[in-house]
Amino acid sequence: MGDFLCHAATFARIEDRLKRFGESLSPLILNDDGSFTRPWGGQASPGEDLDVVYASRSAYFSPATRDFFRYLAEVRRIGWFQSAAAGLDAPALRRIGRKAEKFTSAHEHAPAIAEWVLWAGLDFFQRGPARRAAQVEESWVRMPFRELRETRWLIIGFGEIGRTVARLLRGLGAHVTGVRRSPGPDPDADVILPPSEMLAALSEADAVVLSLPLSPETEKLADAGFFAAMRENALFVNVGRGGLVDEAALLAGLETGRPAHASLDVVATEPLPQGDPIWQHPGVTLTPHISAFTEATDRRTDALFLSNLEAYLSGAPLKNLIEKSVFEGD
Amino acid sequence: MGDFLCHAATFARIEDRLKRFGESLSPLILNDDGSFTRPWGGQASPGEDLDVVYASRSAYFSPATRDFFRYLAEVRRIGWFQSAAAGLDAPALRRIGRKAEKFTSAHEHAPAIAEWVLWAGLDFFQRGPARRAAQVEESWVRMPFRELRETRWLIIGFGEIGRTVARLLRGLGAHVTGVRRSPGPDPDADVILPPSEMLAALSEADAVVLSLPLSPETEKLADAGFFAAMRENALFVNVGRGGLVDEAALLAGLETGRPAHASLDVVATEPLPQGDPIWQHPGVTLTPHISAFTEATDRRTDALFLSNLEAYLSGAPLKNLIEKSVFEGD
Repeated sequence: MGDFLCHAATFARIEDRLKRFGESLSPLILNDDGSFTRPWGGQASPGEDLDVVYASRSAYFSPATRDFFRYLAEVRRIGWFQSAAAGLDAPALRRIGRKAEKFTSAHEHAPAIAEWVLWAGLDFFQRGPARRAAQVEESWVRMPFRELRETRWLIIGFGEIGRTVARLLRGLGAHVTGVRRSPGPDPDADVILPPSEMLAALSEADAVVLSLPLSPETEKLADAGFFAAMRENALFVNVGRGGLVDEAALLAGLETGRPAHASLDVVATEPLPQGDPIWQHPGVTLTPHISAFTEATDRRTDALFLSNLEAYLSGAPLKNLIEKSVFEGD
Repeated sequence: MGDFLCHAATFARIEDRLKRFGESLSPLILNDDGSFTRPWGGQASPGEDLDVVYASRSAYFSPATRDFFRYLAEVRRIGWFQSAAAGLDAPALRRIGRKAEKFTSAHEHAPAIAEWVLWAGLDFFQRGPARRAAQVEESWVRMPFRELRETRWLIIGFGEIGRTVARLLRGLGAHVTGVRRSPGPDPDADVILPPSEMLAALSEADAVVLSLPLSPETEKLADAGFFAAMRENALFVNVGRGGLVDEAALLAGLETGRPAHASLDVVATEPLPQGDPIWQHPGVTLTPHISAFTEATDRRTDALFLSNLEAYLSGAPLKNLIEKSVFEGD
């Protein structure tokens, strides 16, 4: 019966559904104050061997997050680590990826992120900032706006998030070009282009979305040349990683109207330091890396974990299993 | 060869496509300064008999609007009047409806209005106002938000606009209940209810949309009892007519959180007078009756007019022909 590490808030949500695995699991609960409890009995002190770890949203974002990762750094063995996130680039996760026998990611936040992108897109094409300014000034002035269904989008990184964004946009009538390394058509895109054609395609897009992982090859992908290649009156969206963007080049680009507006859920340094010019720039909509964070994402991720748990305990294949080689070489 | 009245900006857009009707039409163009011109020749002064009138957006909203309606009030005959709008409630339009031999409306703005509603809905469920306030305060605080795909909508008035809104929402995964007088299911709604069940249904809806015409029966439909019946943390949207809402009751309702927010494209008095408390209310998003106004709406309405023009000149049935009885009885 292996130890199963989980944050207290997540355990409360899934305890009922875990009970049928009671013979196989010994839950070890991490509380917000850093203490551990054994809700189903056994010695409270944490051991050296973790069979199953569920790194849910509250493991990543709670007062106990530091304790969570410190403990994982110390244990001798991790049998299987289920992450609630898609990203594999954080150093702490890369260390866990090398230690864990199995590492699975999650993409259950893609629908939430796609709605965030749609919110950003509609607020731009509907001219939300100008409308709100007119309302404050009590000015009954009719400003033209664009229909999203008539716009063209370039989605750079056509994985689960990019595809989910594309499905929403195309369902509303927009035209979507996806950029990804693997060639060939995709049912969720009107056009798929290789990265070598990205720069030329920027001039055709009314909105450009970054939804690709951060890696040495993609770092500062959006640089001065990238923004200069954008068309006039177009939106730039980043739901990937802040490191994909040269932020000085973005701020300089905004001055020239390319992009016309930037909607960012991620920035290079998080939290963004107070006083950074991104905060108050009228051409920037900034949210604190929350596009994925809904109760529905939690529910979907819990369901993924429980399905993978059943597979893990019965020796069946796990969904979203990451190859060990991904974590090698740091 | 009958006189065809059209505003100058619209004529410039469609002149090329009108040329094939050149034998049958004598265009009479109204300019923004109130003067008339005959671009295809003939006496410039306006006559007593109008065969065709195209009341495009620029006829309704331009410096020439007053001249346009004054002239229509004076002419002896109007053969066919094509309105770019769906509404039939304005007194000037009702007078034209009684005078014109044929009156056709347009619903080509429904896709634009539906996107406006989606913008309003996403900004509410994504917590746009709170996010923008946090950005101004440079506060990196993570606020939970709801996915639109998990929300339930009540659309009161299930005509062309209500149905188009419903299609967008259901395409994104939301649940839609429509309220209309004619019974029976509708392919664009999960549920259709009669008006008698509207009040009970309000408590089930995360968002309520008014998209019905103004009439003596619907005036101040949204009153104190209506808002009190709404659920907590729900959005109220009006893209119908301002007269559908008791605005004092709405402002009082906002104080109690029912609705949690109001997104209004229409108000009882337009333009809304400066100093009206609706302007500065933090719980109100107000736009100046523009949800329909896009270039795409103009293009679609021009195409409708040209198609109806061909039908009119050949004696075929007109699309969106309004029964004369609708305009009787004032």
